[in-house]
Amino acid sequence: MSLEPGQTIGILGGGQLGRMLAIAAGRLGLKVLIFDPDANSPAAQLANKHMQASYDDEEALARFADECDIVTYEFENVPLDTARFVEDRSPLRPGSTALEKSQDRLEEKTFIRSLDIGTAPFRAICGLKDLIAAAKAMDGPSILKTRRLGYDGKGQARVDAGATDNAFEKAWLAIDEKPAILEGFVPFSKEISVIAARSTDGRVVAFDPAENRHKDGILRTSVVPSVIETATATAAKEVTARILENLEYVGVIGVEFFVLEDGSVLVNEFAPRVHNSGHWTEAACQVSQFEQHIRAIAGWPLATPIRHSDCEMFNLIGSEVDDWPAILEADDTVLHLYGKAETRSGRKMGHFTRLNPRQS
Amino acid sequence: MSLEPGQTIGILGGGQLGRMLAIAAGRLGLKVLIFDPDANSPAAQLANKHMQASYDDEEALARFADECDIVTYEFENVPLDTARFVEDRSPLRPGSTALEKSQDRLEEKTFIRSLDIGTAPFRAICGLKDLIAAAKAMDGPSILKTRRLGYDGKGQARVDAGATDNAFEKAWLAIDEKPAILEGFVPFSKEISVIAARSTDGRVVAFDPAENRHKDGILRTSVVPSVIETATATAAKEVTARILENLEYVGVIGVEFFVLEDGSVLVNEFAPRVHNSGHWTEAACQVSQFEQHIRAIAGWPLATPIRHSDCEMFNLIGSEVDDWPAILEADDTVLHLYGKAETRSGRKMGHFTRLNPRQS
Repeated sequence: MSLEPGQTIGILGGGQLGRMLAIAAGRLGLKVLIFDPDANSPAAQLANKHMQASYDDEEALARFADECDIVTYEFENVPLDTARFVEDRSPLRPGSTALEKSQDRLEEKTFIRSLDIGTAPFRAICGLKDLIAAAKAMDGPSILKTRRLGYDGKGQARVDAGATDNAFEKAWLAIDEKPAILEGFVPFSKEISVIAARSTDGRVVAFDPAENRHKDGILRTSVVPSVIETATATAAKEVTARILENLEYVGVIGVEFFVLEDGSVLVNEFAPRVHNSGHWTEAACQVSQFEQHIRAIAGWPLATPIRHSDCEMFNLIGSEVDDWPAILEADDTVLHLYGKAETRSGRKMGHFTRLNPRQS
Repeated sequence: MSLEPGQTIGILGGGQLGRMLAIAAGRLGLKVLIFDPDANSPAAQLANKHMQASYDDEEALARFADECDIVTYEFENVPLDTARFVEDRSPLRPGSTALEKSQDRLEEKTFIRSLDIGTAPFRAICGLKDLIAAAKAMDGPSILKTRRLGYDGKGQARVDAGATDNAFEKAWLAIDEKPAILEGFVPFSKEISVIAARSTDGRVVAFDPAENRHKDGILRTSVVPSVIETATATAAKEVTARILENLEYVGVIGVEFFVLEDGSVLVNEFAPRVHNSGHWTEAACQVSQFEQHIRAIAGWPLATPIRHSDCEMFNLIGSEVDDWPAILEADDTVLHLYGKAETRSGRKMGHFTRLNPRQS
């Protein structure tokens, strides 16, 4: 089904991604209903309506599904039961399958490998014994990650093949002894991401890959264009399209890649939603990732992105947001703040994009 | 005073201009409270809060002024008493003086002339006798316009110097015998407008002039850049700055000009708000007129506009909005719909901007 202007998109989750989606939907004449337990939801501030309820409140979810013509989600940790409950009552785009795979690092990587797409080496970890055996079998250092609910570097610990049993135990305790995977460290030369959309009729459109820099597991900057070979960009886009097609996905996805010295790519992970490394699109393209997602889930045609500027996007983490007056002074810079009442360490408070005349 | 992110801007009026201002304010982390009697206000759909009350409800206005840190207005027909009532309680930007002058065509033109700025010839009209005498004294055809509450070609009638008394009476009845002015017809070669902002510290920044085409008194398209001599653009910007300074204005203004064959300019009128002929800025510049207005009234630095594309903006009037699917198909085109529930003849339902590679 396709929406008409005036119909309602429901968004499960009300953070900054939902906020930017709400703006994009509003600009296209669509109504937005945010479902989020938080009274201070950043997205609800800019949406037509806010249903403030818990994700396990089935009575509220049923009303939500009834009121919405299409439902989407803005974070990948929406409980799967919630998504499925809604999906039984209203079209959910993307569907719960993408959510299910992305919520579990083991399932995600197993799925990606099943498509003949490269990832870092990995092993499932159920206990300390697994961890020690797997780490020793890895060719070098590796990273222990909980299978579920990790983001922005949380739920992760680094281990070395030659570590002491004590060090292994410390890592295992650091992730609260939760089901995990151990990923071999990949000697990548850079990290890139592809933000792409797939429409209801199966068309896939990608933005130019961004080159990303992280610190403490949190994205700091995305630069576009990334300095990569054309073959690398093509491979990353092709892999993204393969993932989208195999998930029968509708909407925008963010796929993170490691680029190796030889220019080949391995998938790090994907997020079944608009992605922080695509925030530059609102400043440097005629269509943003947010509008593209709305177009896709509304059953509308995707736009082929036209990038008018080179750019660099910077996240404002925690108290960095206090720099907003200086950022406003720079003419070549587009500022975006998320309306969060409380500044907390490690919290994404906003971002800005510096535009440069286009070089490529 | 200057705002901090998280503070609240109040907007008197809740149409599409308020809607676009609300989006811009939200992107800068500011809260928005819309004051509008209409339950279906397009702006309130995308604002933090809607105070639905009549413009003469002083109890509601007092609460509104209390809740807002700064107040602005999005249409020039906000009752002057309303604006003054609020201005006594909260900073109003721009102030009520700009509103007062723009609400009355006679005051507006008299003010502009007092700054040594050219306008079409005009006469105050209080009755049919005035009209006949003034029309016969004009050098050619002229246009009868009500002094107050005219917009988009409403409250206007054309008269000819050599018309019959019957024709004069018909024109007079056509504007409901209201206090009016008679404007001599100006043989202009084109119409342009300048969208400019003035900050709390008196800095004036203008966007590139747009070339406008009207039909039946309603703006149809704005093209940027306009094909005018540099001296014409400079003169139009200089006149705009003079108006802003003399009004001690804070915020964005739209000034419409006639360009004569010799390249000189006459002011047609100004609107003390963001302006339809500036909608292209959201698609073709790093800063939109809406963000510029928010920056100005928040006491924040203005951005010097950087235009990355040439462009043409088209209004979608009445049922033209039904063309939205075809417009969405064009990659070089940015669509904006206003979320109005009912399509009415002559009603502005949305607009789109076609982007072209920059030529100049």
